[in-house]
Amino acid sequence: MPKNAFYAQSGGVTAVINASACGVIQTARANSDKIGTVFAGRNGIIGALTEDLIDTSLEDDKAIAALRHTPSGAFGSCRYKLKGLDESKREYERLIEVFKAHDIGYFFYNGGGDSADTCHKVSQLSETMGYPIQAIHIPKTVDNDLPITDNCPGFGSVAKYIAVSTREASFDVLSMAKTSTKIFVIEVMGRHAGWIAAAGALAADDDIPVLVLFPEIKFDQEAFLARVKAAVEKHEFCSIVVSEGASWPDGKFLAEQGTTDAFGHAQLGGAAPVVANMIKEATGYKYHWAVADYMQRAARHLASKTDVEQAYAVGKAGVEMALAGDNAIMPAIHRVSNNPYEWEIIKAPLADVANVEKMMPRDYISEDGFGITEACREYLLPLIEGEEYPPYRAGLPRYVRLKNLSVASKLPAFDLD
Amino acid sequence: MPKNAFYAQSGGVTAVINASACGVIQTARANSDKIGTVFAGRNGIIGALTEDLIDTSLEDDKAIAALRHTPSGAFGSCRYKLKGLDESKREYERLIEVFKAHDIGYFFYNGGGDSADTCHKVSQLSETMGYPIQAIHIPKTVDNDLPITDNCPGFGSVAKYIAVSTREASFDVLSMAKTSTKIFVIEVMGRHAGWIAAAGALAADDDIPVLVLFPEIKFDQEAFLARVKAAVEKHEFCSIVVSEGASWPDGKFLAEQGTTDAFGHAQLGGAAPVVANMIKEATGYKYHWAVADYMQRAARHLASKTDVEQAYAVGKAGVEMALAGDNAIMPAIHRVSNNPYEWEIIKAPLADVANVEKMMPRDYISEDGFGITEACREYLLPLIEGEEYPPYRAGLPRYVRLKNLSVASKLPAFDLD
Repeated sequence: MPKNAFYAQSGGVTAVINASACGVIQTARANSDKIGTVFAGRNGIIGALTEDLIDTSLEDDKAIAALRHTPSGAFGSCRYKLKGLDESKREYERLIEVFKAHDIGYFFYNGGGDSADTCHKVSQLSETMGYPIQAIHIPKTVDNDLPITDNCPGFGSVAKYIAVSTREASFDVLSMAKTSTKIFVIEVMGRHAGWIAAAGALAADDDIPVLVLFPEIKFDQEAFLARVKAAVEKHEFCSIVVSEGASWPDGKFLAEQGTTDAFGHAQLGGAAPVVANMIKEATGYKYHWAVADYMQRAARHLASKTDVEQAYAVGKAGVEMALAGDNAIMPAIHRVSNNPYEWEIIKAPLADVANVEKMMPRDYISEDGFGITEACREYLLPLIEGEEYPPYRAGLPRYVRLKNLSVASKLPAFDLD
Repeated sequence: MPKNAFYAQSGGVTAVINASACGVIQTARANSDKIGTVFAGRNGIIGALTEDLIDTSLEDDKAIAALRHTPSGAFGSCRYKLKGLDESKREYERLIEVFKAHDIGYFFYNGGGDSADTCHKVSQLSETMGYPIQAIHIPKTVDNDLPITDNCPGFGSVAKYIAVSTREASFDVLSMAKTSTKIFVIEVMGRHAGWIAAAGALAADDDIPVLVLFPEIKFDQEAFLARVKAAVEKHEFCSIVVSEGASWPDGKFLAEQGTTDAFGHAQLGGAAPVVANMIKEATGYKYHWAVADYMQRAARHLASKTDVEQAYAVGKAGVEMALAGDNAIMPAIHRVSNNPYEWEIIKAPLADVANVEKMMPRDYISEDGFGITEACREYLLPLIEGEEYPPYRAGLPRYVRLKNLSVASKLPAFDLD
């Protein structure tokens, strides 16, 4: 009998993480001689710990295919990080109990840096606790901050959304600038890495001034206001893309709410009004501001075709690598060439992926700190290339909701820490 | 020699106001025996007052056709309201001078309620000041608050954007609700009329709870918080669509910035964080919030096909009505039937349009004040029906920028009031 698989989604969801799920499940189905049922964890790793498993074999092929065009995490995601084996042995013992009870030999965890760490810990269970499991991390994060992989599935679609939205809003402001709004500020995600903010700069051209405030560059208020004034004097308007992680020289975020998420990261929001008000006070220019928040990472209606294809490919490759006997790795995207854009899937060892954050290289940010370089543009453009629209019905996208039927539990209940 | 035409865009721009411009110019070109050059006002009526005219005949057919898929106001818009004839006779005399100097006999003004008022005043110039002009108002406003017309071009696309974005973000929050965000608040436009907010309710279904805060309904904090709690208890999450115009029982906006625009309307922004924080304090639920701002009305990438077609149709009909001898009217949309959705263009007298705001009928808002009725849903659904995507190049929409070459001035300069 072939071993069953466990698949779960972790951390903030994206427009294409379900495309990875689609890649995993379809590839498993195509290899039913070597891999049994794919059980999905309801709400990520919590589903494994609490034995709350979803039987994906009860979903028909059409529903699984529709995951490719459905944003969000179809099985529920979570922000829950396993502690080290020494700190929380009972959690690892519980995972092994659940895996044994359901004959699970493959563990696919679809997430970002924190999830790669969790996956890495699970991959060591065979060695540390004598349970044979192959753990593969499927990369996903809008922040694009995983190492080794050229880019992260989920990022390209956010990048496209922010580039398109910034260009569209810039057209709007330009229309109004003579007698009304001259400043448009859009706040984007990216707590520590400015990749998403950088994508906003793709909206810029000779007639569209776009200034970017990166988390990597300490905020220089004087230089910034001078650049805003210069842009308005030349173009009558200025668009500004501010990362939620943009910070003052003392390290304090431009907008800090004082609350934290489950991983202890500061919860942000509100840099846009801060920047807009600052400009108003210094120049008197009328402003508008937007906060894209979840809209940007859920916007499957404007997904990048490259991104959808890569998200599917890493899911598919993850299963193929597991079937080939791999453990403790992540299928990563390797850029073969820019013109034409070509890429392939390579293997990244999880030991090198977990807990490493990839910032923007300094030479991707222009010398003045408010824009991107040509090298960055060349990097970004292929990632937003192509459109892959979802089907619509009655004016709205036809996103699938799975049945998500539970597998009968075989074990006593388990209390999370 | 046929008379020339003046065309200008006024007030906040939309994703499809240029489709109306396309309808006007293409129809004028098809009737070149009866109508001469279309001069566009640079920045709306200001272009007429300052004799800052754009010669649209210098744009090739391809560029004019591309207006159909380009958001924003291609000729620049303005927030500038003509005073009454008794208050500012010099402005009207100036308009006549400019019209005479450029042999303009047709005046097409593309805007909302304030612009309809301006257009109405211009339409009276033949009677009041003896200058023969036919003034036609082309309706446009995302607020959907013009009377007589069934709906306003520009609204359908915003409605689609807000409905789709709210649904996408709801999918996202649902994925995260178990361990993280349970509340998503999106702030939308609509200063006095809740039409755009109502569109957010189209994202709701049996599994997606959406509460709407309308400007038409005084905010009942206690009832609202009870509804949020009930939704989270049942669905684990709740999405909230708050109109920028939502207000407390004493009439104060939920978020007031204290600044005003050129028409004296309060400039708003920031209702979303107010609502999110209020929920957090009362319930402890983790939240995210977004402010769609200009993104919503510039989002040509997600335009409603119905909206694009109607925007073009009112532009085309405006020229045809002018050629048929009409004055002081607005081509309006009349809904013939819902199933199948059919509509036609009728004539609305400007005297009945100017300065009348169409609010949501009370029977479009559910009894509890937090949602829409079936009648409202039936009204809204055809307006978001269909997709009409712009062409893309290198990952971004190919929006046209016109040459916008100026016509040589023939008159002395004019100082605006």
